[in-house]
This record gives sequence, C-alpha cells and structure tokens, in this order.
Amino acid sequence: MDKENKTLLTDFYEITMSGGYFETGRAEEIAYFDMFFRRVPDGGGFAIMAGLEQVIDYLSNLSFGEKDIDMLRRRKCFSEGFLKYLREFKFQCDVWAVPEGTPIYPGEPIVTVRGPLLQAQYIETMLLLLINHQSLIATKSNRIVRAAKGRPIMEFGTRRAHGASAAVLGARASYLAGCAGTACAVAERDLGIKALGTMAHSWVQVFPTEYEAFKTYAELYPDNCVLLVDTYSVLKSGIPNAIKVFKELNPPVKGIRIDSGDIAYLTKKAREMLDDAGFTDCRIVVSNSLDEYLIRDILQQGAFIDSMGVGERLITASSDPVFGGIYKMVAIEENGEIIPKMKISENVEKITNPGHKKVYRLYEKDSGRMIADVITLAHEEVPAGDDYVIFDPSFTWKRKKLSNFIAKDLQVQIFEAGKLVYKCPSIDEIRAYCLEQIDTLWEETLRFENPQTYYIDLSQELWELRSRMIENLREA
Amino acid sequence: MDKENKTLLTDFYEITMSGGYFETGRAEEIAYFDMFFRRVPDGGGFAIMAGLEQVIDYLSNLSFGEKDIDMLRRRKCFSEGFLKYLREFKFQCDVWAVPEGTPIYPGEPIVTVRGPLLQAQYIETMLLLLINHQSLIATKSNRIVRAAKGRPIMEFGTRRAHGASAAVLGARASYLAGCAGTACAVAERDLGIKALGTMAHSWVQVFPTEYEAFKTYAELYPDNCVLLVDTYSVLKSGIPNAIKVFKELNPPVKGIRIDSGDIAYLTKKAREMLDDAGFTDCRIVVSNSLDEYLIRDILQQGAFIDSMGVGERLITASSDPVFGGIYKMVAIEENGEIIPKMKISENVEKITNPGHKKVYRLYEKDSGRMIADVITLAHEEVPAGDDYVIFDPSFTWKRKKLSNFIAKDLQVQIFEAGKLVYKCPSIDEIRAYCLEQIDTLWEETLRFENPQTYYIDLSQELWELRSRMIENLREA
Repeated sequence: MDKENKTLLTDFYEITMSGGYFETGRAEEIAYFDMFFRRVPDGGGFAIMAGLEQVIDYLSNLSFGEKDIDMLRRRKCFSEGFLKYLREFKFQCDVWAVPEGTPIYPGEPIVTVRGPLLQAQYIETMLLLLINHQSLIATKSNRIVRAAKGRPIMEFGTRRAHGASAAVLGARASYLAGCAGTACAVAERDLGIKALGTMAHSWVQVFPTEYEAFKTYAELYPDNCVLLVDTYSVLKSGIPNAIKVFKELNPPVKGIRIDSGDIAYLTKKAREMLDDAGFTDCRIVVSNSLDEYLIRDILQQGAFIDSMGVGERLITASSDPVFGGIYKMVAIEENGEIIPKMKISENVEKITNPGHKKVYRLYEKDSGRMIADVITLAHEEVPAGDDYVIFDPSFTWKRKKLSNFIAKDLQVQIFEAGKLVYKCPSIDEIRAYCLEQIDTLWEETLRFENPQTYYIDLSQELWELRSRMIENLREA
Repeated sequence: MDKENKTLLTDFYEITMSGGYFETGRAEEIAYFDMFFRRVPDGGGFAIMAGLEQVIDYLSNLSFGEKDIDMLRRRKCFSEGFLKYLREFKFQCDVWAVPEGTPIYPGEPIVTVRGPLLQAQYIETMLLLLINHQSLIATKSNRIVRAAKGRPIMEFGTRRAHGASAAVLGARASYLAGCAGTACAVAERDLGIKALGTMAHSWVQVFPTEYEAFKTYAELYPDNCVLLVDTYSVLKSGIPNAIKVFKELNPPVKGIRIDSGDIAYLTKKAREMLDDAGFTDCRIVVSNSLDEYLIRDILQQGAFIDSMGVGERLITASSDPVFGGIYKMVAIEENGEIIPKMKISENVEKITNPGHKKVYRLYEKDSGRMIADVITLAHEEVPAGDDYVIFDPSFTWKRKKLSNFIAKDLQVQIFEAGKLVYKCPSIDEIRAYCLEQIDTLWEETLRFENPQTYYIDLSQELWELRSRMIENLREA
C-alpha cells in the first residue's frame, strides 16, 4: 500500500559493510543467508509466517534515489565509485521463503537468500523488520482466535498501534491468522479486508438521550445496527433502550456492544434481557482489553458472547511484543563451490546451521498431521522410505523411525536472479491456507502454556557437517 | 516523511458516526474534544509528549480521494450527499496542544480540539495513534537515557520495530527524549538525526580471519573504527585482534562493541586490556537486549561502558508497550454557549473532566522546579497571587497554599479554524527543551519504581462544575 521508496530504511551498518565489500572487490561474491528465529513469543508451540508480500514489494522496489546518494555523500566516508554502484543497484538475488500463513518453528530457515554478498547483506534490516512484525501479530492473533473457539474476532487496535504501518499491516497479519475483520478502514481500501465499526461513546453523548442516539443510528444503519450500551448503565439504560429501538424499528441486523464492566456477568444478564424481549437474534459483541487469557476465562465463566473486538493487546502483542527473527550468513561460494559458514557461540542454542539448506515438513499419511520438520542440505533428496529415521540434533540418542509419511518442501522460490517468480496468493487464500495448516497440528502443540516441543531435526549429512565444523572451529 | 494520504487510516466507526452527523444535520455543530491518558507506562512518574509534528502533517493533508470515496460507496450505506461532503472536506478546527518534549501527566488535556462535530470526531483515531506511539517511545527512551547516567544511548531497534513507521518515528521519538542517535539510516535523510553503525558478525565471518576483517575495516573507516569483538571470543580473539589493528593503523576514532556475554565482566576485562595496550581513548560500546533495569544493574556492578546501543526493548517499549491515550467529547456549543459534557462511569477514575479547559503548570520561582499542574476552564485567569490554594480533586481536604510561583499555560494553539498557526521546532530544539524540562522535575518523580505522584489539581470553578454534573447525572 505504501509505495514510498524504503531502500534507505536500513541499519547504517548495512551501508558501511556494503561500502567495505565494494571497496575490497567482494561485492559480487556469492553468499548465502538464512533468516530464522529462536523463540516462539508467549512461550507458544509455533509461530505463523507473515510479511512476505511486503518483503516482495520492498525487494521489487529496491533502488537508491538522488536524496539517498546525497545523504551518503555528505557523510564523507563513501567513495564516488561506491555511490555510483548504489545508483545503479539492481537486485539480483535468489530468494526462497516459507509461504505466508505457514506454522513455523525455531531454528528453521524461513527465508534463504543467495546472491551477491553486498546485496544479500544489504536487505537484512528490512527483511527482518517486515517479517518480524507481521509474524509477531499473526502469531498473537491466532492465539486470540483460538481462545474464542469459533467466535469471530475483530481487530480493533489502530489507535494503539506503533505507527501507521503497524496499524495497517497489523490488520493484515491478524486477518491472515484468522481474525474476521478489522476496524481499520484503509485496510479495506488497500487490502480488501472488510472494515467494521458502528459508534463511540461520543455518539451517545451528543444526543439528548441514549434512546434518541440509538434510534437515529438504527434508522441510518439498519443493516449493521450494533448499539454501544455502556455509556450510562448497561443494564439500567443501555439494554432497555436498545430493546425499545429494536421493537420500534426491527433492524435486520441487531447487536449490542459492551466495552466496560464485568463481561461475564453483564453478557449473561444481557442475553437474558434480550431473549426475554424476543431478540434471540441480537448479537452480543464485547471489547475491553481482551486477549487470549481473558477470553478463555470469561468463556469458562459462561459469558454469552457472539463476537469480540480485540485492540491494544493484539495490535502490540503486548504480552511479548518482540519477534526475534535474525539473519545469518551460512555459506560463501568460492570457485563455484559452496563453502559453509557458521557462527559459533558459547551458548549451544545460538550456534547456527551451516550451508545452503532446505526444510522438509513431514505429515502422517493417514491423519494428515504434522510429525516433524527436517532441515537438510539443499542438494539432498526428499526424505522418503518406510523407515526414515529422524533424531534430535542436540540429543542424538532421541531417535524415531518414520513410515507412512509424506514430505513437503517448505520453502518456495520467490526471486530468481532478482526476477520475481512467485505470485502472491490473495489475503483470503493465505487465511484459508493458514487455518487449514493449523488444523494439521496436534492439540499438544496448540496449548497456550507449556506446549509440546515440535521436532525440528537435521538430516544426517547436515548434522555431520555441523559437528565437523564445530570441531574445527573449536580447534582453531 | 511519508506523504501518502492517510485520511482513511481511521476506525470505520468514525465514518459511520460522521455519516450520522451529516444525515441528521449535526455535522457543523461546534464540539470540543480532549485527548488525555490515564496511566504512565511502566509505573513511571511522568510521560513525554511526542508525535505532534506528525499530527500536524496529518491534519494539513486531510482530504478524501476518489479511491476513498469509491470504497465507501461500495459499502452501500452512505448517501451521495455525504460522499460529496467528504469529497469537499476541508479541515476547519481549532487545535491546542502541549508541545513535544513536555513532561505530561495522567488526566490533563494534552490536545484539545474545537470545531465542527463531524471533523473533530473524525480525527480521533489518527490523532491517538500518532501521539500514543511516539509518546510511548519517548517516555521509554528517556527512562533508558536516565539509567545510563550521561552515557550516550543509540537507538538500534529498526529490525524489531512494528513496521516501517514504527522504526522511523520510533527513532524520532527516542532522539527527542534524549537518545544520541539511531542506527536507522533513513532517519538521517528525513529527520536529520545522525545515523551510526559499523559492522555485523557477517562482516567478520566473511574474511578468512577476524584480524583481516578488523584491519580492512580500519583502513576503510578510520574515523569511526568501532570493531565488533564477539564473533569468536571477546577476550581470547576479539580484543587482541582489535588491539593489533589499533597499533598498526592507529585510527583516530577507536572503539570496540560487545554484543553478547556478561557485559559487566567482559567490559571490565576489556577496559583493562585496552588500557594496558595504551588505548585509554578506545570507547567500549555494548548492545545486548538492554533496557533501563539492566543498564542500572550492570553500571552498579562496575561495568566500563562508554555508550550503548538499545534495540528491541526500546523500539517496542517491550515491558509495557501500550500508551493508552483516549479522546473524549467534553463540550458542545448551543447558540454560542458552551455546554459541558462528561462521561460518567462506575469507576471514579474514569470520569472525564467536562468543558473547554486549559492546563497551567506551576513552577517554584526560586528553584525553577515543577510544583503542580492546575486544570482550569478556558476562560479562567492564570493562577497567581501569594496564596493560591491547590487541592486534590478526589481528596479535597488535601490542600496546599502556594506562593512565589510562576504559572505557564501548557497548551499552545496549533490550528485556528483549520489554518496552521504553529511553527514546529526542529528536532534538536525539541530535544533540548525536553531535557531542560526534565531537569525541573524532582528526583522523587524521576524514580523508576513507585515515583511520587505529581499534583494534577482542578481549579475551584472546574471542580464545582464537575461535582454539579456528577450529581445531576446520578440523579437522572
């Protein structure tokens, strides 16, 4: 939606490093980078990939304008040769990625980039920003959607979003992960996500009486007549006035919204009053600092809710607002040969997986359930056969023999030598795919707290390469 | 920086309400709205106002394009008359606001809007979004800056920001609240905030040895030669290699950056090694999931740090990522008379202050310290005199007689009948003003935990109006 050039929206060190690669004649060496993440937010069992469409927009429009060049020249540390290179910059990398809406797990490459070192490095910041943000919101939103057990969740957070793109792309991410719609009007114009909303307390305040406010609204918008009933008193005035208006005007779509007070208590009373008045078709909408935990609690307490608006806790993922995706170099080509690279660390879990890789997802043939992901080197065959053995890369005695499974190559190619070779699915296609994929997860993985850890295993060949490299680096 | 039309970036209910005001002939009635907030994030003693410049951009460019009108027409619930009104929409409100960089407190009007009901209502969502976001980041950043006790803080969070505008405007908010700079390159191009950054681990990995990576960098960028020393081992290889390169090339600006491990321990050892080698001028930069609490702790433990890069915990305000500013109708004009309005609530603290108001900030004449803020009706005189009495609006027996103070009208006029009458200060002016204002706070207000609650009092006249209205509404 925002076609502004974002080429310079990057960490300054990408530019100093690019300058360094250019000046030392290394800009065109072929390098491989992986994006992956280490921890699922909120201690969840899986995350949801999102933001790829915006990455594609970004990469498709990557070019340095005169304003960018001027600013860099003023820094007096870049050569004219380098600035000329940037002015003529044309994206030439191969990019593979896991499609949006896919459940993803720590440690596996969700984006892989192969191309000229300078370019493959340069795109780091924005690639991370876009995927970290939307994957965060998609992951959080799906938790909230699951807590609601089929009741539609509306994204209501625009006013608490961290800036304009957080609002619009947050609406996008929440929708593709299962929300039913958004309050954000521009998301309908630009992304085709239906925007909804009726009235604020000020609408009720501005009329001489609540009844007049409701009646006027019902006359104007009978097809979405959701009345906000908590400006004065939900039970003493809001619902009685709503009932009066429904009786007089009988709008085809009736609803009430409660935005404060004890939701469990008020919705039970409200349901009773509405049913007694014959409005069993009147929907009850609630919206008051909800998240997956509160929704689970009030539903357990028997609240009568037809749909929910969720604001600040969704659009900021407030309980854990950081998705820590990182981008690491995994190989360099020398004379056409792929030389794997890895970053070693004192912390075992921070050691990266070297080489150009692929991820296979294995599903049980009969149930269609996800069993495990296997990370392999890119040239390896699809895992297959009746006794394919997977094993834990840290605790290698933990082994499991698999039979009767199918393996799916998780990454798809997005760019080939800088040319876009992927057609983004529509937002509704992504949403349908996401919900269908989540249906292949075991209940144990779906738990909000202490979920079962999903198997992310390495192929024998990758595991051996990794072990060998650790040994060599430790000796060095 | 982003000149895209954001008119439709709003909650859909602003449009349905606007349609309602138009259809019932109320669009041009004069209404008053206040923006205020109820709680300082992180339990802090004050927040910092930010985002006004972006609000001004937004309001200056408010207009509905054909794409907007087309989308609304497709909804089939708005009349052509209303759509024509939107197409001809021209912002005509008066707007007053507290300048950016000002310490602000719960309950006081930080923005006041007076104008045609439809317009004053319509701008709610974006006004809240822009001020909530930047005030959140400014408030958090200032906590981090204060924890560092004079050491420069660099904003390093772009890759973890919630979208592009969160990155750029987050850099802006953090700078005006005291950060020394940012890693975000585009913030230099568009906002004039100096962007800094040197290298990632991949730079070190791509060279055959760490020494070669450092040496190449020092040759290319001697004027900002900050070497990242933790790719292999900080003490065994990173610092020895840095020292070797400093000895050989003696770059004028020397530094090392540590991005992992135990900062307190490593920086003490690093300082020792650098000093022993004669590089007492070599700066030590650290950057590893820092925030105000961790900074306070490692400084107490004697860490040697010259400057810090702070990323995800600043740019997402991760410990409390919601700034809950709200926008409430406070009055309506009827036949030229201001009729105050208020929203009553079961929760006393949620009752709004009615009427068109002003905020005065009282400073001790001798010390220049802030004493209290007094909210008055707009027509009231400046608090003055030798025995001006302030009192707590909830606990009215809590009274204090003030003398020898000066009073400052906190809001300035920004728009007059839709015309911009305010010149935004430069970002450096805002920053200087912010830091100067924070110097007028008492230490008790600056505490991170359980700070002293600052006095926000009401004038006698406003208090009486409010009490009278509560009584009338309770009786009704």
